[in-house]
Amino acid sequence: MSDTPLSPPDETPEALDQFYRQSRPIDLASWLSQLPVDQAWHHLAALPLPRQAQTFGALPVNDQTALAAVIPTPDLSAIVALMSADDRVDLFQSLGPIAQKRLIETLPPEVSRDIEQLALYAEETAGAIMTSDYAVLDAAMTAQEAIGALRGQASSSETIYRSYVVDQMGRLIGSVRLHSLILAEQDAQVCDLMEHDPVSVSIDTDQEEVAQRIARYDLLAIPVIDDAARLVGIVTHDDASDVMQAEATEDFQKISHVLPFKQNMRQAGIGMLYSRRIIWLALLVVGNLFSGAGIAHFEDMILAYVSLVFFLPLLIDSSGNAGSQSATLMVRALATGDVQMKDWRALLLRELAVAAALGATMAAVVFPIGAWRGGTDVAVTVGLTMFVVVMIGSLVGMSLPFLLSRLRLDPATASGPLVTTISDATGVVIYFSIATLILQL
Amino acid sequence: MSDTPLSPPDETPEALDQFYRQSRPIDLASWLSQLPVDQAWHHLAALPLPRQAQTFGALPVNDQTALAAVIPTPDLSAIVALMSADDRVDLFQSLGPIAQKRLIETLPPEVSRDIEQLALYAEETAGAIMTSDYAVLDAAMTAQEAIGALRGQASSSETIYRSYVVDQMGRLIGSVRLHSLILAEQDAQVCDLMEHDPVSVSIDTDQEEVAQRIARYDLLAIPVIDDAARLVGIVTHDDASDVMQAEATEDFQKISHVLPFKQNMRQAGIGMLYSRRIIWLALLVVGNLFSGAGIAHFEDMILAYVSLVFFLPLLIDSSGNAGSQSATLMVRALATGDVQMKDWRALLLRELAVAAALGATMAAVVFPIGAWRGGTDVAVTVGLTMFVVVMIGSLVGMSLPFLLSRLRLDPATASGPLVTTISDATGVVIYFSIATLILQL
Repeated sequence: MSDTPLSPPDETPEALDQFYRQSRPIDLASWLSQLPVDQAWHHLAALPLPRQAQTFGALPVNDQTALAAVIPTPDLSAIVALMSADDRVDLFQSLGPIAQKRLIETLPPEVSRDIEQLALYAEETAGAIMTSDYAVLDAAMTAQEAIGALRGQASSSETIYRSYVVDQMGRLIGSVRLHSLILAEQDAQVCDLMEHDPVSVSIDTDQEEVAQRIARYDLLAIPVIDDAARLVGIVTHDDASDVMQAEATEDFQKISHVLPFKQNMRQAGIGMLYSRRIIWLALLVVGNLFSGAGIAHFEDMILAYVSLVFFLPLLIDSSGNAGSQSATLMVRALATGDVQMKDWRALLLRELAVAAALGATMAAVVFPIGAWRGGTDVAVTVGLTMFVVVMIGSLVGMSLPFLLSRLRLDPATASGPLVTTISDATGVVIYFSIATLILQL
Repeated sequence: MSDTPLSPPDETPEALDQFYRQSRPIDLASWLSQLPVDQAWHHLAALPLPRQAQTFGALPVNDQTALAAVIPTPDLSAIVALMSADDRVDLFQSLGPIAQKRLIETLPPEVSRDIEQLALYAEETAGAIMTSDYAVLDAAMTAQEAIGALRGQASSSETIYRSYVVDQMGRLIGSVRLHSLILAEQDAQVCDLMEHDPVSVSIDTDQEEVAQRIARYDLLAIPVIDDAARLVGIVTHDDASDVMQAEATEDFQKISHVLPFKQNMRQAGIGMLYSRRIIWLALLVVGNLFSGAGIAHFEDMILAYVSLVFFLPLLIDSSGNAGSQSATLMVRALATGDVQMKDWRALLLRELAVAAALGATMAAVVFPIGAWRGGTDVAVTVGLTMFVVVMIGSLVGMSLPFLLSRLRLDPATASGPLVTTISDATGVVIYFSIATLILQL
């Protein structure tokens, strides 16, 4: 790509006009989203209608919502009618009830019906991310008839490259590639060209599983069927890829103790970020009361061997770090489908071996430092504690995501904070218990 | 999808035969990869050749390499010749020099040349993940001629849905959708149907940017051009989606202090996991020497106010947690392209505000606990320290990814461990310094 500018060089009519014509919708959208809404609409209104709809559709939903408030209803209605079926539902659902009503009343009836239908499905399911833009063929058509039918149905979407074949009841029975239709003899029948039993998902399949399936089978789109096996929509690869990115971002937030949010990080507000971050930080204070209580219990020991305090942050950090290593690896492997619930037992055995090796190495590293600071007894105490807490941190970190998964909770949600709290509290108690045994014999 | 079984119900010839026929290549591959290699080859050999190649190509590369060692060279050569151009290069590069030589000698010359050509490009660039399976048209062709030409070029790949138009020098000048060719008048010229100036990448563009660009422009594939703007390959959406998943997994590993590895988590070995995890754990011990030295320096203070120790894990954890929140949010936002280097200053100001709010809240939470454990002076010390360390943790966590990025280092690599070490060491020093000021006045 000869890199096109991402904003117009100046505001002369010529420069703007050239920029409008040369830029891709997503690039225009990026530029518009940095402008005040009334200016953004001013520029958007200068585009031909199909390009208006493409550009508007490429904006993030919260920008679309803000813009929708300043666009006159007839213009908005014209834009929405041209947007892709899944994008316009997302916009519709973000509007207030009055704006929704006004839009529904001014849109062509078939578009309104389509929106109301798609808006029914639960969030984060196949139903919520699917589109009704897809091509349907009859099994009895010839290749030539099928191509003719596609010409009629053809929207501008990429989804024409695979058509779906349904029976009289509307049930999905096959799929056929445009490619196969073109290469076939003109009178070959669709039922002989189609692939039977295509990979599909149900309306209520979780969006993450939809995305995993599209990736696993390298699909352009996956058909969505209802309880009666009737074809009701498709989810396209680009939406699936957005879902995967969003789900990964959510997991990143969760494992680093942030409540998930969907806003773009650049646009996120101070209040929102504060509220998403403070909860776990404050809850961790409660968790720390346990380790604090442990320390208070061993006050006399600390006064007698103050060098023990020297190792406290190290031991607690090591346990927490080993735990977060294990937890993150498992959370990610469960999210990508690399690992499943049934693998738990085998993975636990492996984790035992890895954790023992890690613990032994860490003990060996910390032993000489202990000897230097506090003599042999302290070295033995610190080394032994290190071995035990790294083992415990790893095993807890590895097991917790499975346990949460089994309880139908998101493995990422509490893994991070819980691992930290558990490894902290047990770390302190184990440390001073071992110290009591060794130093006060 | 009527869920097909993921392994044959039994080993009778009939059951196996039905399983072979009904399963999709990726499902067959998943089953084969759990078997010993000689058994896997036994089953693979029973498939028709094209399906052999598809199934073999769907295996992870390390399984392909293991299998390649037991497959007789003529069979291997037949399979490799049918694999997609990018997959067979990956296999080729994982083979030893002798196996490589044997393979190159038995493959058809044009396949060998193609492999040797593709094998030249640097890892993790567009060149390394591109394929040479794509269709090329001439701008002067008519729509009918173009469709005829595609029939000739057509491989089984999805990549036929967009063809690329090159000039006499082989330079990329446009792209045209199959859809447009079919809908066009038969004598319309390709140059009038094509889109000019298609989005492209260079051979040496980083694979993460390639994937970002495909996602940004919702492409099925992106053309790759060389220094002279000649078309040399394409990267397809499914490979881009794999790259995004792999890069996200790598970032998950890095922020949780694990050296990145590419193996599937279920198959990863004990030694490999140990080696990827021990490095940062052990290095963090060194980092902890600083905080330990800090504590040692304040030994007298601890003996006088042992209740201060009570708050040590809490303060250090809070600082580290706030830091890892900020670091993770930034690492992820930089990886997805949501945030760029130029946003640094604006984001720093916002982070200052968020961190101050977080610090103040945390101070308010910890103050009463401090008062209860050690009286007003300790409460003030602990509250003030909490405010300062949460601020410092957040600001370091937020800035470090940008700094590493600026130094052309991966922001994820050292953010996690560095944030931990810095917030630990500064936490201890700040804590006891504030304590000295307040308690010993």
